Amino acid sequence: VKDPDFASPPELGACRIAIVGLGLMGGSLAGALRGQCRSVTGVARRSETISYAHRHRLIDHGSTDLTEGVTGANVVVLATPVRVILRLLGEIGPLLAEGCVLLDLGSTKTEIVTRMAQLPPHVQPLGGHPMCGKERAGIEVAEADLYQGKTFVLTPLARTSRPALTLARHLVEAVGARPMILEPRRHDRLVAAISHLPYLVACALVGLAEHTGGSDPAVWEVAASGFRDTSRLAASDVTMMLDILLTNQKAVLDTLHAYQKQLRDVAELLGAGDEAALRTALQARRSRRAGM
Amino acid sequence: VKDPDFASPPELGACRIAIVGLGLMGGSLAGALRGQCRSVTGVARRSETISYAHRHRLIDHGSTDLTEGVTGANVVVLATPVRVILRLLGEIGPLLAEGCVLLDLGSTKTEIVTRMAQLPPHVQPLGGHPMCGKERAGIEVAEADLYQGKTFVLTPLARTSRPALTLARHLVEAVGARPMILEPRRHDRLVAAISHLPYLVACALVGLAEHTGGSDPAVWEVAASGFRDTSRLAASDVTMMLDILLTNQKAVLDTLHAYQKQLRDVAELLGAGDEAALRTALQARRSRRAGM
Repeated sequence: VKDPDFASPPELGACRIAIVGLGLMGGSLAGALRGQCRSVTGVARRSETISYAHRHRLIDHGSTDLTEGVTGANVVVLATPVRVILRLLGEIGPLLAEGCVLLDLGSTKTEIVTRMAQLPPHVQPLGGHPMCGKERAGIEVAEADLYQGKTFVLTPLARTSRPALTLARHLVEAVGARPMILEPRRHDRLVAAISHLPYLVACALVGLAEHTGGSDPAVWEVAASGFRDTSRLAASDVTMMLDILLTNQKAVLDTLHAYQKQLRDVAELLGAGDEAALRTALQARRSRRAGM
Repeated sequence: VKDPDFASPPELGACRIAIVGLGLMGGSLAGALRGQCRSVTGVARRSETISYAHRHRLIDHGSTDLTEGVTGANVVVLATPVRVILRLLGEIGPLLAEGCVLLDLGSTKTEIVTRMAQLPPHVQPLGGHPMCGKERAGIEVAEADLYQGKTFVLTPLARTSRPALTLARHLVEAVGARPMILEPRRHDRLVAAISHLPYLVACALVGLAEHTGGSDPAVWEVAASGFRDTSRLAASDVTMMLDILLTNQKAVLDTLHAYQKQLRDVAELLGAGDEAALRTALQARRSRRAGM
């Protein structure tokens, strides 16, 4: 039996960290980690992205070549859309050093962690999902304090060694976030409710306004801050969101179904003009929301 | 035939203006108008509210007595929840001076304007609805620049004289807002889509998260800014929202119905895994929302 601590990673401060994908999430993570570890290497498809990251002091080294970028790294972070992560997991194993901790930042975890279980045994994989973001994508909106004070979910595998998990926790804390360990399926059910559903709800709201606006363009003139806030997520990056929805299909559909029940219930009370019951229901939502 | 200009109101600068209801909307309007007219009188139920308005220089005079407050006013603005406006419209007529312009700030217009049509002929009524607000209610959150740059809907009646409408326009412009003339029923259909629906959508989102949280309290720890923005309206004042929903019942129910169709459509595409069609639909929502 192999000692799980055999190839223990070094302390965070001594780690070479490679980040694959320098968008909002990867670029921000690079900027937050730089100076807290031995080196940060950024890997991106376009050389312009590498130049930008250098100019803004987000990385120590950069490469447009995956093999070159991850060679010799103690920690590799995959910070691309979910389905690119799934593809990378199929090819990156042989490129990684013995004991390398492989973390991802994908927004859904079940499929990714299932794929991680098939990695060669010299790799220490675990899933990750920081609960933060912006509608705008790309390195231009990256900022080193994006993770400050945010929850950062980690989903270790049965095979993830204790030192690898400890290093991942240290990385999370180093960028100012709070680690939270969750089982992948549980994570996916939770984010379906508090992230994927709100996106679809916002899109449907814009769709409805457009439907109304089709017969009356004044709808856009009367739309105030309430509409803008509630529909904000509809401006999210579509490629990222498609990856999320299609890799969390069942949980999202279950959640949509339960959400439609919520709407039917309130429509029923309003249709019946049952003011007392409506007041009770809306007051309960208000108390819960005001307490957030 | 009575000359409609017979009892023309004076210019805004010479008007005595009374505002009934010193909450967020009425208090802010008072603060925005004070100094731009002859005097601003605030009418509130509680003497503490009058004291607060005096201390914060929102009003010139204040009263807890409706009759005293509106006597001799050239313009009276009703700034209470919708159903209190409806009640006030039944009793305020005899208290108003000849030619008094009576404006309200209620969030639904059809019922209010129908009731206004029954006012005695010496009054010049018209409906109003500024498209702004906050979740928190009360004079403590009032601010004189609340209306700056916002759309302010006016719904004149057939009986509203041209000078009365002109004065109302000047009042709207004096507080920095843009007047927009709409027919009451059209207003109510539009706000059902861009204001009342988003409120119910936000409440249902909190209800769904609570439903999920019932079995897993971690849901509140993973909720990030996306959830908070999309659910923000659920913290709105329930009494105000109940008045709105119950006086715009049909338009809200029609809109809820059309909204549920939007959700069913996206659920169908996701369930079928139809990525191309899903991308087209979500991209259309994104373009529309990003352009706001």
